[in-house]
Amino acid sequence: MYDIDLPKNEANFIPLSPISFLKRCQRIYPEQTAVIHGNRSYNYAEFYTRCRQLASALVDRGIRRGDTVAILAPNTPPMLEAHYAVPGIGAVLNPLNVRLDAETIAFILRHSEAKLLLVDREYGQVTRDALNLLDRSLQVVDIKDAEGFDDRLGEIEYEDLLASGNPDFELSLPSDEWDAFILSYTSGTTGDPKGVVYHHRGAYINALANVAAWSLPNRPVYLWTLPIFHSLGWCFPWTLSLLAGTHVCLRKADPTEIYRLIQKHGVTHMCGAPIVMSMLANAREGETITFPQTVKFMTAASAPPAAVIERMEMRGFEIQHVYGMTEVFGPSTICEWKPSWDTLGTAHRAALKARQGVAYPSVEDVAVMNPDTLTPVPADGQSMGEVMMRSNTVMRGYLRNPKATEAAFAGGWFHSGDLAVMHPDGYLEIRDRSKDIIISGGENISTIEVEGVLYRHPSVQEVAVVARPDETWGESPCAFVSLREGTRASSEELIEHCRSLLAHYKCPRTVVFGPLPKTSTGKIQKFVLRERAKALRPEKSGVAN
Amino acid sequence: MYDIDLPKNEANFIPLSPISFLKRCQRIYPEQTAVIHGNRSYNYAEFYTRCRQLASALVDRGIRRGDTVAILAPNTPPMLEAHYAVPGIGAVLNPLNVRLDAETIAFILRHSEAKLLLVDREYGQVTRDALNLLDRSLQVVDIKDAEGFDDRLGEIEYEDLLASGNPDFELSLPSDEWDAFILSYTSGTTGDPKGVVYHHRGAYINALANVAAWSLPNRPVYLWTLPIFHSLGWCFPWTLSLLAGTHVCLRKADPTEIYRLIQKHGVTHMCGAPIVMSMLANAREGETITFPQTVKFMTAASAPPAAVIERMEMRGFEIQHVYGMTEVFGPSTICEWKPSWDTLGTAHRAALKARQGVAYPSVEDVAVMNPDTLTPVPADGQSMGEVMMRSNTVMRGYLRNPKATEAAFAGGWFHSGDLAVMHPDGYLEIRDRSKDIIISGGENISTIEVEGVLYRHPSVQEVAVVARPDETWGESPCAFVSLREGTRASSEELIEHCRSLLAHYKCPRTVVFGPLPKTSTGKIQKFVLRERAKALRPEKSGVAN
Repeated sequence: MYDIDLPKNEANFIPLSPISFLKRCQRIYPEQTAVIHGNRSYNYAEFYTRCRQLASALVDRGIRRGDTVAILAPNTPPMLEAHYAVPGIGAVLNPLNVRLDAETIAFILRHSEAKLLLVDREYGQVTRDALNLLDRSLQVVDIKDAEGFDDRLGEIEYEDLLASGNPDFELSLPSDEWDAFILSYTSGTTGDPKGVVYHHRGAYINALANVAAWSLPNRPVYLWTLPIFHSLGWCFPWTLSLLAGTHVCLRKADPTEIYRLIQKHGVTHMCGAPIVMSMLANAREGETITFPQTVKFMTAASAPPAAVIERMEMRGFEIQHVYGMTEVFGPSTICEWKPSWDTLGTAHRAALKARQGVAYPSVEDVAVMNPDTLTPVPADGQSMGEVMMRSNTVMRGYLRNPKATEAAFAGGWFHSGDLAVMHPDGYLEIRDRSKDIIISGGENISTIEVEGVLYRHPSVQEVAVVARPDETWGESPCAFVSLREGTRASSEELIEHCRSLLAHYKCPRTVVFGPLPKTSTGKIQKFVLRERAKALRPEKSGVAN
Repeated sequence: MYDIDLPKNEANFIPLSPISFLKRCQRIYPEQTAVIHGNRSYNYAEFYTRCRQLASALVDRGIRRGDTVAILAPNTPPMLEAHYAVPGIGAVLNPLNVRLDAETIAFILRHSEAKLLLVDREYGQVTRDALNLLDRSLQVVDIKDAEGFDDRLGEIEYEDLLASGNPDFELSLPSDEWDAFILSYTSGTTGDPKGVVYHHRGAYINALANVAAWSLPNRPVYLWTLPIFHSLGWCFPWTLSLLAGTHVCLRKADPTEIYRLIQKHGVTHMCGAPIVMSMLANAREGETITFPQTVKFMTAASAPPAAVIERMEMRGFEIQHVYGMTEVFGPSTICEWKPSWDTLGTAHRAALKARQGVAYPSVEDVAVMNPDTLTPVPADGQSMGEVMMRSNTVMRGYLRNPKATEAAFAGGWFHSGDLAVMHPDGYLEIRDRSKDIIISGGENISTIEVEGVLYRHPSVQEVAVVARPDETWGESPCAFVSLREGTRASSEELIEHCRSLLAHYKCPRTVVFGPLPKTSTGKIQKFVLRERAKALRPEKSGVAN
């Protein structure tokens, strides 16, 4: 009875797309500041017009539905505009990581079949090299940023391209909300990068879920320390249009500049990798500025160490810990804070906050499972399994890589590749990437657990633990440590510190001091450290522990 | 390229349904209070279990996907539970207006082909009468509410039904998010009631949009003065699960009880018709209790008069004005408040707040259009047109009423039947229901405009203006007025008041004093007043104005 005469029509079924949020916002809040970048700022009417002009100009240059448009730029206005204009003509935006080398860029441009590249002039040289490696030509648009560099490369400048576009051009919604709209390559620590294909539907839903997850108010002032090219900027390019918020752009995460912008523009919210947090927490006098507001800071990747959280809170930040990855539109679990935890001691609170938590409001199900049997591990805080998800905020799959796509979706769950335990209260805690785990004498050692203990030593600024080949044990933990300025610590002291807090087989046998290699998004490059650990002079472990 | 090998699968495409919000919430917040009713309260674990038991028991009684389950109950726990349990087995819930007469109930039960009826014993007699009118038998479940009445009717009591259900029964998501899940009949001021068919998709989206529209925090305490049977309770039955909020139930809107519950439970949010607002604003000493928090109050239907807003704000409420109707899942426009309006004078602010505003975050488009040409009227604050919408939060259509469905969706827009003007700043303001407008001497007169002026008279408590047949002018405005307690005013005085503020042709020629007839949702029944106006002794108007 209910399926007779009640079909979808134009009035009651509209493809979900985050483009709708900008269309609505500019109608209601044309005069509200949308974007601030250096001395320039655009209100929503201007920002929308710029998006329309870009869209129109791309059509004039032959870009059509399903074509790929690449962009290599830091967090500047063109980056935000491209996130609306390219999907707004049914094309697919491919934001490139600004730290990539020429070879990888060439690989991606080839694999994505990009028809046009927008490139900030800071990245002129690497792009030139990449284009030389490419076996075909490509339309290139230079972005000359007043705040940036001047290495001319392409046939037209971004602002001239915009000026050629029609300011009344209509951004269109996709014909199907499942349409591809962004393509983002994973950093590919091993093998070729994989191209994650995103759909409009997921971005619409996660942009809304961000509001519920973080209790976002109307008109937040949001500082872009998180690279927008990284996991869709966790969908905040669109969440802000939903709330008529202000984007504060930033070319490069620098503590002095971040503090200055927070104070100058009254920033209320920001997202960032742990590296940004420790940068802000460890900033010296002269680099910091005090500000009257509380700045909400959403962080992901590795668990925030207690000491960093404390120092951040003293400096006016309130930390929200989430977890996610490129494949899932940004955050997909959140460490929901319970009021009853407020009164616990600092260490206990930090331990709770370090957990990756529970499903994000948009996520249907998240589980820690045995990847072979697809059964959940016991929720005992001990048994490790792989984090798996089902959500409308999971990617369509990897572009032209059916094998990887199939593996990622084996058994009807998205396999994150991260190992975790489930606590009795239903909060999960990441223990390791599958490939990072150390197997020593047949026992699994969570490198994150060992790192957490090392972080509690007062001299440790940053640490990464990786497997080192070991004749007796197969592998043994090797710690790479950078020390806090003005402090000292010996290998023996750090190992002793671990032995007082951990089962002895989990403790590092080797400690190497020095700065740690990082990816563009602030993640420590463990694969580099694993190579270094392999190259160390072979060590013969004793059996006594 | 993007459509190869990247289909939907179980991991990345889940039908949107608000049932997901409860499943998530009870996992994260099992111990959080979900429902308070009198001296009872249920935490989310208990609430979810009750929903599962109800779902299981309904299956045991033969209810299947696509079957209709009716419920006649005020805002009590069973009402909330039915909103999850019935859709959770793929069936369709049909909440009945508690003010309906037996004949209308019988009509609806017949039209909806309801297989089972849950009925609060307060409505035993009217149900008995309705069932006697029905040409078939029906399973009836009595709801004996400790706070309520005791008129036994059905074959089993609600709590016994629950006890018979399996507490581990799994609520299922729909196979398609477009599936019908609630059926709600419009009050039908003329002709038979029409059955509005809602889909899961729209409720999921509007439940999320409520959070963004109202900047809802986590764990709000929400008092149910708005009848849940009315427009899905504006989707708040599900929004609260998204935020782990607490439902405070209420059988009947009574000012003393409302103030008591606000204070006792620390209520933070409530929705309600203007009648509830004026009840609270006009409550006498002894009926009110002061409370420390600010209570956010979302209201719709008619524009809140300035005096009522002021009095409400003095008493600790903050008013948010929205607009919607049964067909659009509750709110679909919102009077978004701009910070620059804060400093305006009281009258100016009230005039701005009285406007119905702009698209709700979930609404794709709202326009004021000429219904014949489907072109927008000029945004001049003067030209009247019909409010039309396109949104994923528009109904599927009217059940078994293709003619009405077709008319509602003519030209690919949902026709609201409300007449409005569009202001130059893009905010719309309702001027009348299509059927309420007065045409006098060929001029349209907005009854809402005339009412607004009458509300500014200090003695006027409530007013409704309708058309009265007039030999000279075709129609003329007739005002029905109830006066504030302890005040007096003559017809002449009120008419003179109008003439000082309005074009003379818009002023009432007749004023009738006395209480106004209302629907169960607090709307003044203008069709009753139109009949009364018609029945007045014919008046011969002079031509001089």
